[in-house]
Amino acid sequence: MGGQVFDTEGLVPMDREMTGMNTLFNPRSVAVIGASEKPTKLGFHVMKSLTEGGFPGTITPVNPTSKEIMGLKAAASIFDIPDGPDLAIVALPSRMVPGVFEECIAKGVKGIVLITAGFKEIEDPQGAVLHEQISEIVNKAQVPVIGPNTFGMINLRANLNASFTPEFSLVRKGRIGLVSQSGGMCHLICFLAMRERIGFSKIVGIGNRLNVDFEHMIEYLIEDQDTGVIALYLEGIDRPRQLYETARSLRGRKPIVAYKTGIGRLGDQASRSHTGSIAGRGELYSGAFGQAGVIEVRSAEELLDTAKALARFPVLSGNGVAVLSSQAGPGIAAADRCQKSDLSIAPFTEQTQARINEILPPLALRVNPVDMGPAWYDSEAVVGILKAVLRDKNVNGILLFMMFASANVDSIKSLSFLMEEGEPKKPLITCLSAPPGIWDEHIQRYEGAGVLVNYPTPERAAEAMVNLNRHRRLVL
Amino acid sequence: MGGQVFDTEGLVPMDREMTGMNTLFNPRSVAVIGASEKPTKLGFHVMKSLTEGGFPGTITPVNPTSKEIMGLKAAASIFDIPDGPDLAIVALPSRMVPGVFEECIAKGVKGIVLITAGFKEIEDPQGAVLHEQISEIVNKAQVPVIGPNTFGMINLRANLNASFTPEFSLVRKGRIGLVSQSGGMCHLICFLAMRERIGFSKIVGIGNRLNVDFEHMIEYLIEDQDTGVIALYLEGIDRPRQLYETARSLRGRKPIVAYKTGIGRLGDQASRSHTGSIAGRGELYSGAFGQAGVIEVRSAEELLDTAKALARFPVLSGNGVAVLSSQAGPGIAAADRCQKSDLSIAPFTEQTQARINEILPPLALRVNPVDMGPAWYDSEAVVGILKAVLRDKNVNGILLFMMFASANVDSIKSLSFLMEEGEPKKPLITCLSAPPGIWDEHIQRYEGAGVLVNYPTPERAAEAMVNLNRHRRLVL
Repeated sequence: MGGQVFDTEGLVPMDREMTGMNTLFNPRSVAVIGASEKPTKLGFHVMKSLTEGGFPGTITPVNPTSKEIMGLKAAASIFDIPDGPDLAIVALPSRMVPGVFEECIAKGVKGIVLITAGFKEIEDPQGAVLHEQISEIVNKAQVPVIGPNTFGMINLRANLNASFTPEFSLVRKGRIGLVSQSGGMCHLICFLAMRERIGFSKIVGIGNRLNVDFEHMIEYLIEDQDTGVIALYLEGIDRPRQLYETARSLRGRKPIVAYKTGIGRLGDQASRSHTGSIAGRGELYSGAFGQAGVIEVRSAEELLDTAKALARFPVLSGNGVAVLSSQAGPGIAAADRCQKSDLSIAPFTEQTQARINEILPPLALRVNPVDMGPAWYDSEAVVGILKAVLRDKNVNGILLFMMFASANVDSIKSLSFLMEEGEPKKPLITCLSAPPGIWDEHIQRYEGAGVLVNYPTPERAAEAMVNLNRHRRLVL
Repeated sequence: MGGQVFDTEGLVPMDREMTGMNTLFNPRSVAVIGASEKPTKLGFHVMKSLTEGGFPGTITPVNPTSKEIMGLKAAASIFDIPDGPDLAIVALPSRMVPGVFEECIAKGVKGIVLITAGFKEIEDPQGAVLHEQISEIVNKAQVPVIGPNTFGMINLRANLNASFTPEFSLVRKGRIGLVSQSGGMCHLICFLAMRERIGFSKIVGIGNRLNVDFEHMIEYLIEDQDTGVIALYLEGIDRPRQLYETARSLRGRKPIVAYKTGIGRLGDQASRSHTGSIAGRGELYSGAFGQAGVIEVRSAEELLDTAKALARFPVLSGNGVAVLSSQAGPGIAAADRCQKSDLSIAPFTEQTQARINEILPPLALRVNPVDMGPAWYDSEAVVGILKAVLRDKNVNGILLFMMFASANVDSIKSLSFLMEEGEPKKPLITCLSAPPGIWDEHIQRYEGAGVLVNYPTPERAAEAMVNLNRHRRLVL
């Protein structure tokens, strides 16, 4: 798995004009070099991913000793494949990789996913020699390589699961492009996303970066029509300046969210592993991220939470937020979070305030943040307030909280008016919470229609709004 | 719902020797005053909670105009109940409450849950008058009251759901006693707990505190054999000194975790609502919590995460922690968190290190934090390392991370050796993550047997360990 860092020596940066990235992610044909029918081999799991993932193009297992793998005719060598392949996925011992790469180039392969580990990241100097050797082969031919030491990559829109984990195909299709330096963290993030029904466009384990590094992925995903938000997980990187320059030059094109670990002394030690290339530079990274317009986050959950909000609501037009809570507590918790940030709990216009005063009795807290407690069982009151606040020119984004109780089981349905109003003009970020199975279907329907994004807690909802505002300020 | 704060004027502190608390939470018979068959009435939902919750004692609906409610014979008045009731749940308009309270006392009721709102928290001064009036009645008779303005309370071990939300009965039985000032937040926390299978002993919405305040609940739960950890959600309170003195005097008896909101200017404004009793004193609270040995947390999720760890592992014998990760990334993220705290990523003993060096190849990061990447598909290696570290005298707690991939689907089973080892001597806190349905059953089995506690992310697992250590230091 990824997470190892090697020094820059010997790394030949790719030509930025390289055109192979699109074919790498959208091949018509794929060969699995090292395909296997043995579940102990990664080549088995890669075949499973491709076939079960529903890849519509040609899949050819390459194995000199098998006639057929998973019902597909095997080729003894890549030269025995009549047409293509555009993409080669390589899962063979590292010593065999130089020869395989030469063959791939000779056969006209357009992109490679190199799952194999055992290059620069190992103590044996032979690893670094191999690394340089294979770099030269692919860089000369301008063929982009994902890896080495990666689980692979997934283009969900193309039903291409070029990884050793078939379950990545269960991730929903969506607008987040994820690029991770750690396979473990990438698996974790995607499993969380499955549970929370968050959708991705592409999932890329860049591993130990032969010639496709973070900056290349950013350049590619900025142009990628399926991707609305770019999410990065980084540990230590070799060429922070290239990442910085690329992000800064593309600043404002698409939101970029980054989670950087390895900031503590030992975490850093673990991330740089044996090569000693990068020292602990958490603060340096934070400063550079800010200047480049990248939103830095502090956990895998916050990465997902933020990307999810930005995928739906990339633009917050100002820092005025309304907090509407059917019960006081969640609103108070959210107001605390907002007030620690640059968000403003905006005073309502006179018109909005008058409308709220009509709807809520005096015993309620009717100014922003609004405690709709006394209207808790009155769905029409909640809708009336929400409609007034949606129209309020002082309000740029809305936080809405409703906790289920037996007596308000149907209140969730009252939000269906949002579906008829078409594209929401302001971010509506919610925590609508109920026991499992009671509100889930409704929430999924609203989220599916794009009228709101929902979070498990009011604090996480508020932090998502805070990060929408950070994005606004970073790219102003 | 809770979340309103009233000033101290007129509040008669209860006699600390009050003996009624035990009967309040463990009544043999319950009357619902204001029981109803109409789903628009809270008295309907309370009846549903009691009957569906499986309360084994007598339930009597009290309603002068109904003969029968939910299949139970109704009493026209509390005086028509032949035996008891020990507990009266009151869900009637506030103006009727003084009369009802007089009747309850005359009938010998031992405890009351007052769901009704409309006392001190409302603008109308009549609310405060009523509040004082009913306080006098119950304080004179030394009868404890949960509320007013509460959803109620639940004693899960007694199958007593004295609330208007029947779904609270779906919360698992466990060792956490939760006391919340906000009904909305309490519902939220319990819905999260349902999804994460976290168990509670008692769930109490203390509402606007007539004569049962936080300090009384702490005193009671410290003595309660079913409760191992006390979790508090607070907004603004009237008598912070009593809470402080009580917690401090009982310091070290049981872990107490507190989440205080209303610390921002507007959050505070919202929490004190109309009465202006408490100003923003976030820092004062934090200082007092620390001195009283209370672990302060910053979100509903952290409250649950921390209580869950403390319910299983109340004692961390020192600050030495081992980080074992089957993939580098999660271990690095966790090491970052540990190093921001007083935890120490402990150097292993020579014996442990020698054993790990035997098991892992040199290309792995074999010192703490250990990257078990190269042993990722080798369950025996993981078990060997874990066993060695469990025995290491330098290690007081272990963080273990394993992310599923198709090739290591069965690695979760290798942890079953823990089940044979009996009571774990050191906290084992994990993030074992897989797509939904793949590992869940195994994780639940291990958690059920008490050999580990599992979290959705490595960061949250690490923060739980950090808070175990904060507890250790607070009560040293």
